[in-house]
Amino acid sequence: MNSEETAVSIAKAAKAAFEASQLIPTAERVQALHEIRKELEAAKEAILAANRLDVEAAQAEVDAGRMSAALLKRLDLTKGDKWDSMLQGVTDVAALPDPTGNVSYASELDDGLKLYRVSCPIGALLVIFEARPEVVVNIASLAIKSGNAAILKGGKESNETTQLLSKAIQTALSKTQLPPTYIQAIQTRAEVSALLALDQYIDLVIPRGSNSLVRNIQHNTRIPVMGHADGLCAVYIDASADLKKAVRVVVDSKVDYPAACNAAETLLLHESTVGTIWPAVARALLAADVTLLCDAPSLAALHALAPAPANLASHARPAPADAYATEHLSLTLSVRVVRSLAAAIAHVNAHSSHHTDSVVAEDAAAASAFVRGVDSAGTFVNASTRFADGFRYGFGTEVGISTGRIHARGPVGLEGLVTYKYVLRSEGAEGHVVGEFGMGEGKKRYKHRRFEAATAPFYE
Amino acid sequence: MNSEETAVSIAKAAKAAFEASQLIPTAERVQALHEIRKELEAAKEAILAANRLDVEAAQAEVDAGRMSAALLKRLDLTKGDKWDSMLQGVTDVAALPDPTGNVSYASELDDGLKLYRVSCPIGALLVIFEARPEVVVNIASLAIKSGNAAILKGGKESNETTQLLSKAIQTALSKTQLPPTYIQAIQTRAEVSALLALDQYIDLVIPRGSNSLVRNIQHNTRIPVMGHADGLCAVYIDASADLKKAVRVVVDSKVDYPAACNAAETLLLHESTVGTIWPAVARALLAADVTLLCDAPSLAALHALAPAPANLASHARPAPADAYATEHLSLTLSVRVVRSLAAAIAHVNAHSSHHTDSVVAEDAAAASAFVRGVDSAGTFVNASTRFADGFRYGFGTEVGISTGRIHARGPVGLEGLVTYKYVLRSEGAEGHVVGEFGMGEGKKRYKHRRFEAATAPFYE
Repeated sequence: MNSEETAVSIAKAAKAAFEASQLIPTAERVQALHEIRKELEAAKEAILAANRLDVEAAQAEVDAGRMSAALLKRLDLTKGDKWDSMLQGVTDVAALPDPTGNVSYASELDDGLKLYRVSCPIGALLVIFEARPEVVVNIASLAIKSGNAAILKGGKESNETTQLLSKAIQTALSKTQLPPTYIQAIQTRAEVSALLALDQYIDLVIPRGSNSLVRNIQHNTRIPVMGHADGLCAVYIDASADLKKAVRVVVDSKVDYPAACNAAETLLLHESTVGTIWPAVARALLAADVTLLCDAPSLAALHALAPAPANLASHARPAPADAYATEHLSLTLSVRVVRSLAAAIAHVNAHSSHHTDSVVAEDAAAASAFVRGVDSAGTFVNASTRFADGFRYGFGTEVGISTGRIHARGPVGLEGLVTYKYVLRSEGAEGHVVGEFGMGEGKKRYKHRRFEAATAPFYE
Repeated sequence: MNSEETAVSIAKAAKAAFEASQLIPTAERVQALHEIRKELEAAKEAILAANRLDVEAAQAEVDAGRMSAALLKRLDLTKGDKWDSMLQGVTDVAALPDPTGNVSYASELDDGLKLYRVSCPIGALLVIFEARPEVVVNIASLAIKSGNAAILKGGKESNETTQLLSKAIQTALSKTQLPPTYIQAIQTRAEVSALLALDQYIDLVIPRGSNSLVRNIQHNTRIPVMGHADGLCAVYIDASADLKKAVRVVVDSKVDYPAACNAAETLLLHESTVGTIWPAVARALLAADVTLLCDAPSLAALHALAPAPANLASHARPAPADAYATEHLSLTLSVRVVRSLAAAIAHVNAHSSHHTDSVVAEDAAAASAFVRGVDSAGTFVNASTRFADGFRYGFGTEVGISTGRIHARGPVGLEGLVTYKYVLRSEGAEGHVVGEFGMGEGKKRYKHRRFEAATAPFYE
């Protein structure tokens, strides 16, 4: 079979597995997670041996200067408590509340005619990620928990490891009623390309990886894509900002973990803060080894300071033309002075990736304008952009962070992997038909009596 | 300007209008709806005169055999109570609950650090529809109520009318704080094509019209599309079906309004019902002038009946190869016998458009398998597929019916025009930073205390 034929057969199998799984009790999905943990424990030695092969091959690439040491580190399943965390993750996901079967709308349209909007899985997912092999297990757990079939493609660097992880998952599934093709792993980019064309079988694509990976997928499929390419977050220091909050929020947003998508890349300063708050913020950033790419007014303000801040000469310089459109992912921050709150909002809407942006302000009207006016998944007040994270938000686990506007936005928990369907049940002696309703004489009127329901009939 | 340049300037204006509108109080949006009604009333004579021009031009097309009489009828704003309904619709939408500003998740992450998930508009909408000019007013009302900017493109047959309707809307907007470019109308297909490429400005496309219109749009944009191309609904008569319910549900699903997307196009019969329930159902359908495209067993059963049903010779014939993939939109029904409930579910999943499918069954296990196993936006038990409709569901008004799986599914009310954002507010004396949290000594733990909140601070 060529890649296209392989892709069609994989995609069809995923869709068929999804459809078959809908008739299997939820408890079986939880059982599958426990089986997966058992299989992983049983296959630990073989998996870690395969992982050694991946790591050795990667080490050769690193030595040859073709791969970064950071990538190699992400590959290694024996590092720290990675293996145990991976197993614990499976157990944790098993313990999370079932995201399916929840009723969000219930209304009696007529006596004995009850409508329920009930959460249900989406269908067949295609998840594409890079490097970290344990993501296979994380994503498989999330997909199974939420009732979706999944096709997983890891980075080629982790092929040996992911193959054995996938095998363990399939062995575990074979001990349950769930179809073994519920979770499938693929190995080649050609298969991914072919799968991206199969919108009749694949319902959602979730890319997790570099900007270029995500962007490439977004531009090459009609299937909905959930995730984010960029994380270009900004902090704005309002005229009403408190100095200490400004220093703490800006430094944490930039320094806590600069490689994260929720780290700040741009600092906007209201012009009235350039001589008051900016010096303290800049001193703290420079002391934390942050490089500042400044517009003219913010740079001039720094050069006017006495004593000169540490690192000023080496770490502060004029912002290049693309500074405010750049996701640095490092200890670098673009700085710009704006004449008004409105200008700050306009800058963020024009340049940010609609991920997370924060305002430091004491004035409630200013905070409100920023929160309403900034069109991002997260708009924060006096808090670090780094809080934008599924674990920190309290979702237990995270499917990804979406910068799209529909379905799910911001950090996405298990509920991002479900949709809903409407269940309409007639309890009437003769069933229910539309022709009996209307405005004319002898016609019935819709009652639309809302009621509370935890579960829907036929979908317990 | 060529079409591309025009499209870019329209799209930019829509996005800018959306962003500006976020800072304007919600009450102003309701006020705008009242102003629109007033302007429409004031411009009634001119609008109906323009409508006469459209109708006359269309009449010439009908006379020349180039347009259907049905289309002409949809064009005429003076027909029946169309004008008054249109005005009443504006007032009704104004009175609906505001879909924005509702909190669906509130959690205290730490003392004084509160997270709110609050509903908010999506952004700039592109709405494309055919023929009926009053849709301009309906959609403008829905967009304004939900806080979205909109670009509207009607059918070319209604150009004269929609131009004046749009002008009235813009005049009304100019009497409010909302930007006059909040609602824009465009006239050409070339502009639509150019707009479909502008995913940096347009956030959601809503096509309302023929299968080919919707399909063409779905295949020519990366912007999310909400709606449905097909409405291929099925009714399945289970082995446990009640005869009277079967007759009523099948006849209503097919006959009540055959041109609707929620009318049934396919009837599936469990093989055990071919000699019991099918004859009564078929007699009722044939008596209602329905043409039956039958597979061999269902046709043979009809020919074996004595006395022969009325219309049998003229109205029942073998199903052609594409019968089960055809949306008849007329008094025609494809009929197929299946050997099991599982086969019925498989048929629906393979052939239906995932819109709405109904089972007639007394057995709860069979109903449950159908409801869970059929992967459609609506799965009904002993009720007509024709109930799948925003008004009947109790949503007051309907944006459209979605057969997509994410964001909104089935009949979509105003809530399909909103998304959410996360507002995080630190009330702490020093703001909140992530660096203080962790597992180490002296680190804070996340509290994740859920609480009830009707509104979010800064987003009232």
